[in-house]
Amino acid sequence: MESVSFLSTLVVVWLAARLAAEAMQRLGQTAVLGELLAGIIIGPAALALAHPSEGLEALAAIGINILLLEIGLESDLDDLLRSGLQSMVVALLGVISPFFLGFALTRWWGLPALTSVFVGATLTATSIGITARVLADLGRIQDPAAKVILGAAVIDDVLGLVVLSVVTGLVQRGEMSIMAVAILLVKAAVFLVLAVVGGVRLAPTFVRWVDRMQVRGSLIVYAVLACTLLAVLAEGGGLAGLIGAFAAGLVLAKTERRAHIEERLRPVADLFVPIFFVNLGMKVDLAQLHPFAPHGGLVFALMLTLVAVAAKLVAGLGVYTSEVGRWRVGVGLIPRGEVGMVFAGVGLGAAVLSPDLYAAVVVMIMLTTFIAPIWLKRLYGDPDSHERGQASSEAPAPSDGETRTPGASGD
Amino acid sequence: MESVSFLSTLVVVWLAARLAAEAMQRLGQTAVLGELLAGIIIGPAALALAHPSEGLEALAAIGINILLLEIGLESDLDDLLRSGLQSMVVALLGVISPFFLGFALTRWWGLPALTSVFVGATLTATSIGITARVLADLGRIQDPAAKVILGAAVIDDVLGLVVLSVVTGLVQRGEMSIMAVAILLVKAAVFLVLAVVGGVRLAPTFVRWVDRMQVRGSLIVYAVLACTLLAVLAEGGGLAGLIGAFAAGLVLAKTERRAHIEERLRPVADLFVPIFFVNLGMKVDLAQLHPFAPHGGLVFALMLTLVAVAAKLVAGLGVYTSEVGRWRVGVGLIPRGEVGMVFAGVGLGAAVLSPDLYAAVVVMIMLTTFIAPIWLKRLYGDPDSHERGQASSEAPAPSDGETRTPGASGD
Repeated sequence: MESVSFLSTLVVVWLAARLAAEAMQRLGQTAVLGELLAGIIIGPAALALAHPSEGLEALAAIGINILLLEIGLESDLDDLLRSGLQSMVVALLGVISPFFLGFALTRWWGLPALTSVFVGATLTATSIGITARVLADLGRIQDPAAKVILGAAVIDDVLGLVVLSVVTGLVQRGEMSIMAVAILLVKAAVFLVLAVVGGVRLAPTFVRWVDRMQVRGSLIVYAVLACTLLAVLAEGGGLAGLIGAFAAGLVLAKTERRAHIEERLRPVADLFVPIFFVNLGMKVDLAQLHPFAPHGGLVFALMLTLVAVAAKLVAGLGVYTSEVGRWRVGVGLIPRGEVGMVFAGVGLGAAVLSPDLYAAVVVMIMLTTFIAPIWLKRLYGDPDSHERGQASSEAPAPSDGETRTPGASGD
Repeated sequence: MESVSFLSTLVVVWLAARLAAEAMQRLGQTAVLGELLAGIIIGPAALALAHPSEGLEALAAIGINILLLEIGLESDLDDLLRSGLQSMVVALLGVISPFFLGFALTRWWGLPALTSVFVGATLTATSIGITARVLADLGRIQDPAAKVILGAAVIDDVLGLVVLSVVTGLVQRGEMSIMAVAILLVKAAVFLVLAVVGGVRLAPTFVRWVDRMQVRGSLIVYAVLACTLLAVLAEGGGLAGLIGAFAAGLVLAKTERRAHIEERLRPVADLFVPIFFVNLGMKVDLAQLHPFAPHGGLVFALMLTLVAVAAKLVAGLGVYTSEVGRWRVGVGLIPRGEVGMVFAGVGLGAAVLSPDLYAAVVVMIMLTTFIAPIWLKRLYGDPDSHERGQASSEAPAPSDGETRTPGASGD
């Protein structure tokens, strides 16, 4: 059976992901970073212990949909709608400023408009998981700045997916015009509103129907089925499939079975989400970043990182409430994490990002994800404060090693 | 992204599997039967709504390993060792009689020796899940006959996997000799003993190490990792990979975290095990069974079914305890279910079974799985007795539709 070689790859992928994630988490970093590194190391460009395959792509596709479903399940729609003008202003600035700065840098660097739009879009992402994790570690999740950051990050998730949908549509058409952007923007907004409004209306009937099923595990299978179906529908409409998976999560979060679904989804996410990140890491060839690379290699990667950091600090300027620290908000929005990787993966798959640009974008994502926790801890005072020590090292390890905060899903 | 077509296939597979499984379960049949039927119907030979792909194979491979891990977790090693001479005698007869009768029929029918060995091996399987489910429905799980059946079925699982390993090894070598059989038999036995004895010794250290991990979901990922690793090792040694997955389950069942692992594994099994059966169903082309087919088509399928039924009734003759009904035991061992499908799938993959023989074997498996519950209920009296009515229709549906008995995993 040919399945052996696939299963051995899986053993390598899972083991490398787990060990690297564990190492990163112990260093005060996030699991995502470890999983990406694991992918780079075991991938064909380095040790060549594992190679991308159709089977791995299939598992990665399931993984990323499950991750978006989880993020949707954890986002409270009501909270989102009344998260306040302050978060909304920060979120809008946090999308607009990175998009235009990223686009400008890439265009100035001499790259095509479509590629520049994609790089700009990748810079808009905010990884709520990483910041939430750090704030929880610091015991500051109730801080006024934390509320603004988390509110803005959730809105960013939505805006980011809309941007991704628009950009995906542009890539499919292969052309860029104000008209095309406008149509895709309307399409994405209509899809999201229809899916969520329609979904929230239908969900109670759906859940009652599923509850009548007698075969084991109906709830989890139908939940994942709904998520996959919405992803396929979104993609069929020329949008990013992930917006569908996210909408499914938002809708299921409004049902009475939310906690149940989240609980059953967790082991599935634990198994398949890391495969997505390892698989993306495997496609990174760091050798592409030598300084004489066609697009400037590491030089471009570092400039991109600088712009990525600066653009989110600009978003912090949107803070007008006096008790909220502008720096804390700006720095809190810096990590691109898993959401950025989703953009990068789509860009590579659609050949809008060449291998060297992909490597540069991944380096930017990893650096922002690496810098933010360290910087945030500095802004909040001593990183080895009493609280943190208690939260992560002195407390006995919980039974299943589950020290993740609810918001830190999949990273 | 090409992942769309894969995700749409997945939607079709999951939906068809769920609906068919639910329908079968309500008809007093088992979910496996529904999943196989779903595969036949949506497959390329019928409606062509879904096609086999590398991605689907990958998910099926994970599914079947998870199923074997679950079966292993549910088998108590101590119970197995002291399940009594009575079960042991029945189990041995229940393996030997179908193997030789199946081999004899197929050989007499003019097929090659290797194919005949494979068909014989497929007949040895017993699906513990299906009989356990029926006995639980009837409220007769404590019946003396039930204990013998369940004990024998578990031993059959082990013997069946050893037989599968030997047969897989023979197929790989492409030759058949008493010597080769003896070597493979010893190899399989040594592997099983080494994996289980070594595993039971190492397991506590392993579980303690995993418990110290901080990344979310370490236990479930390392459990599945161990299962996949043992499967790869078994396959690397020329045995059936599934024997490794099963051994991992037996070992983990002996640790203090057994219940925890089982609970986390359940949603993963609910999602991926049905894909294995649908995928096998998709490969069945019933049109191959027309009476003028090269190997006799439906005629051979029905003769095979007769032999399959008769051979397990012979095993019932191994009952020497007076209070245990011979018929009940014999009929209880008839369903081939998921274990038989594993054999058939390996045979098709290795090209030992031609498409028409594969179709005939699947028909045999489905018929035995279909007949046994009806027959067993007759032997135990009125199928619509008070007890059964209460167990399956009057009682309010449990929250997650989980009416399956623990033993009925994945079917």
